[in-house]
Amino acid sequence: MMKSIVSSKYLACLVGSIILNLLFIINIYVGGQWKLSWSSRAAIEAETVAAIYCSGHGRAYLDGLVVVGNKPVCDCNTCFTGPGCSKFIPHCTANADGGDPLFLEPFWMQHLASSALVVAGWHQMSYTYSGKSFFSEELAKVVRKVHASVRNAVTQNRFIIFGAGSTQVLSAAVFALSPENTSSPAKVVTSVPYYPVDKQQTQYFSSQKFKYEGDAYRWKNRSDCSITNMIEIVTSPNNPDGQLKKAIFHGPNVKTIYDHAYYWPHFTPIPAPSDEDVMVFTLSKLTGHAGTRLGWAVIKDETVFNRMMIHMQMNSMGVSKDAQLRAFKLLNVVLEEGTGIFDFAYQTLKSRWERLVQTVSLSNRFSLQENNPQYCTFYNKVRQLSPAYAWLKCEREEDKDCYAVLEAANIIGRQGNLFGVEDGYVRLSLVRTQDDFDILIERLHKLITEEDGDKTM
Amino acid sequence: MMKSIVSSKYLACLVGSIILNLLFIINIYVGGQWKLSWSSRAAIEAETVAAIYCSGHGRAYLDGLVVVGNKPVCDCNTCFTGPGCSKFIPHCTANADGGDPLFLEPFWMQHLASSALVVAGWHQMSYTYSGKSFFSEELAKVVRKVHASVRNAVTQNRFIIFGAGSTQVLSAAVFALSPENTSSPAKVVTSVPYYPVDKQQTQYFSSQKFKYEGDAYRWKNRSDCSITNMIEIVTSPNNPDGQLKKAIFHGPNVKTIYDHAYYWPHFTPIPAPSDEDVMVFTLSKLTGHAGTRLGWAVIKDETVFNRMMIHMQMNSMGVSKDAQLRAFKLLNVVLEEGTGIFDFAYQTLKSRWERLVQTVSLSNRFSLQENNPQYCTFYNKVRQLSPAYAWLKCEREEDKDCYAVLEAANIIGRQGNLFGVEDGYVRLSLVRTQDDFDILIERLHKLITEEDGDKTM
Repeated sequence: MMKSIVSSKYLACLVGSIILNLLFIINIYVGGQWKLSWSSRAAIEAETVAAIYCSGHGRAYLDGLVVVGNKPVCDCNTCFTGPGCSKFIPHCTANADGGDPLFLEPFWMQHLASSALVVAGWHQMSYTYSGKSFFSEELAKVVRKVHASVRNAVTQNRFIIFGAGSTQVLSAAVFALSPENTSSPAKVVTSVPYYPVDKQQTQYFSSQKFKYEGDAYRWKNRSDCSITNMIEIVTSPNNPDGQLKKAIFHGPNVKTIYDHAYYWPHFTPIPAPSDEDVMVFTLSKLTGHAGTRLGWAVIKDETVFNRMMIHMQMNSMGVSKDAQLRAFKLLNVVLEEGTGIFDFAYQTLKSRWERLVQTVSLSNRFSLQENNPQYCTFYNKVRQLSPAYAWLKCEREEDKDCYAVLEAANIIGRQGNLFGVEDGYVRLSLVRTQDDFDILIERLHKLITEEDGDKTM
Repeated sequence: MMKSIVSSKYLACLVGSIILNLLFIINIYVGGQWKLSWSSRAAIEAETVAAIYCSGHGRAYLDGLVVVGNKPVCDCNTCFTGPGCSKFIPHCTANADGGDPLFLEPFWMQHLASSALVVAGWHQMSYTYSGKSFFSEELAKVVRKVHASVRNAVTQNRFIIFGAGSTQVLSAAVFALSPENTSSPAKVVTSVPYYPVDKQQTQYFSSQKFKYEGDAYRWKNRSDCSITNMIEIVTSPNNPDGQLKKAIFHGPNVKTIYDHAYYWPHFTPIPAPSDEDVMVFTLSKLTGHAGTRLGWAVIKDETVFNRMMIHMQMNSMGVSKDAQLRAFKLLNVVLEEGTGIFDFAYQTLKSRWERLVQTVSLSNRFSLQENNPQYCTFYNKVRQLSPAYAWLKCEREEDKDCYAVLEAANIIGRQGNLFGVEDGYVRLSLVRTQDDFDILIERLHKLITEEDGDKTM
């Protein structure tokens, strides 16, 4: 009797144990992961590095700086330090200078599985895709889909070309729109306040083909405009002030390049799809991947397209296929997520702008750019700008050098004179990490309230 | 008695089953794969595409052309077609034109696990590395290690800069070595036979800073050389003929750029480490990843380095970080494998060269470049070139247009006149896929034997 109880207990345990074994077998051989072979080493490597804890104020990269051993260290945000980025640096300088679009990093951290990319060692070794083009047809398809879903640009019956960021694409467009053989180079103009790189780049590459001729307004009422070649670069929404800009020049001898880097619901209402001759976009300000260096142009005219193709060949023999693959992956996630990335970006920048307005409104010492509401066809509502940059003006007579005023308050912006205006203006970047923005607001608040304190004395 | 036997059998089974349980637990929780979370979807996706069968005459890419549904189709080698690239196209044209270094693809297919790369969606979004430079310090470290292991270039106390392939790096060097403010642009020269891109690119970007002035030999005995600025681009080993070239010009007003794209044991004996002022290399001809567009320069002078940095900023705001990450991964495999990739590349090209020599030697109609043995410090032995290109000459008076002769035999090479010499020469690429090379040899053999047939008539 006793024995039979014991043995039936054995039996129960045995059955349970066998079931457990079966569960393990199912888990291993039906659970998908059994498939992984050549990619698992790299996957474990990447996940191990990604798991390095940086206190939410930094991140460790696969190719990050290695100080000791072979494990990369945390790459900390401004004002944070220590092995785990946990140490805040008091009185550190607020960095509101560059347009590093790290405000989008949290979106990608929230979409880890869908945005991860696995590349085989033999992937796309050739210069071309299927011996044809330097540029991925599949990537161009995805780009068209994204524009169609946002309705910010007409891409049907248009040519698409890629480049190393909008920087290289803009340069390619200037070369392509310049006259082949002429005694007088094309005049390249931009209207103030303008994006400094357009000026610097055009001056750097200037030749018999084209020459930078400064502020477009200075040429507006010149009679010779009609007879000479003119190339106007229109940054819309504008960098620095976020305004939707239109071309100043029109006519048979005028070519226009629209830099639409910021023409996304993140930053601006979308009144209508843009349908210009040459429209330039960049992954940097859409997904936030500035380091990938992937920009594109949407082009109406085949001759211009072909000349830009020649430029890309002469300049760099096409564009990195790794950059094109990364963009392909990321833009597919953008499509999968519907309005996801746009909502995230808009909400983030909207709340940053509101916090900034609130802070600046505490005094009359500073003012911000106009922000008139406009109808947005993407959100089907009237909305304001949620600009990438604040175009801050120092209102006081004695604050002629606005950059110096902010610098004294431990804030680094970008001088107004770089944008072709006087130094009463400073550009403050609102697209950087949340840490950068929080510290900027803190420093600004301190500057403004202390200055209020002075007034009351 | 019976019962106790039964129960002891139960016990045995139970113990066995529990041991099996433990084994599964160990396998799952210690076997690594349990770690995989966010990367597994991408890993399965990549391995699924990589597993698409293309008969060894093609491969399917993650971002490959999608015809129906969402599964990419095989990207077939020249002369192969069909869904699985299994169909050979008879009488198809042998492509010996471009320098697509696909001969290295099998090496990477043999090193799948170590060369795979997993990239997180949030990886390296910033323009810069740690807010400092556009260029990865970690990649520069690996590049130095590779040069040290091959002993083909001195990199200690040298600056390293990256660009979109040697194409962009060469252009950056020409800009950087040109005089700042001068009435007479620097003369850029190359000695025949020269790499066509140097000419085309210099002419395309020519300005007040520099101008392409053709074959260096034409300037050799001009007196004004001494007083004007001269930039000589020396491609060594040379493209097209693989010879180790030296600069023709020397002196205070002469700047020299050494294009060392092919200065690897793959292609040439390494007599000694190169120690020139500006040395240009590219991933394309080292690992075979032309599409990644990653080249670099090793520079002695800090001013030249800084000017090249400015060029990279003006041109494309740095270089794709995805390209830099890929190069980082691949070059680490090169180091792990010791002489592995060099042995593979050398053996492959050596046997291709020998087959070509054998074929061409069947008649007197064609000749190949000289190939004098030289001591190689990498292999510690005397060896010949295993050149990337055959520099074929048509010896017959009536075969003035050598390109046309080969074209008639269904072979596409590259015309001699592009390299600054007469059309008695054609460049044949030996670095393409094995399929391309096999078909080239077949067509050449046919051409030569048939022509022998004529003779006997």
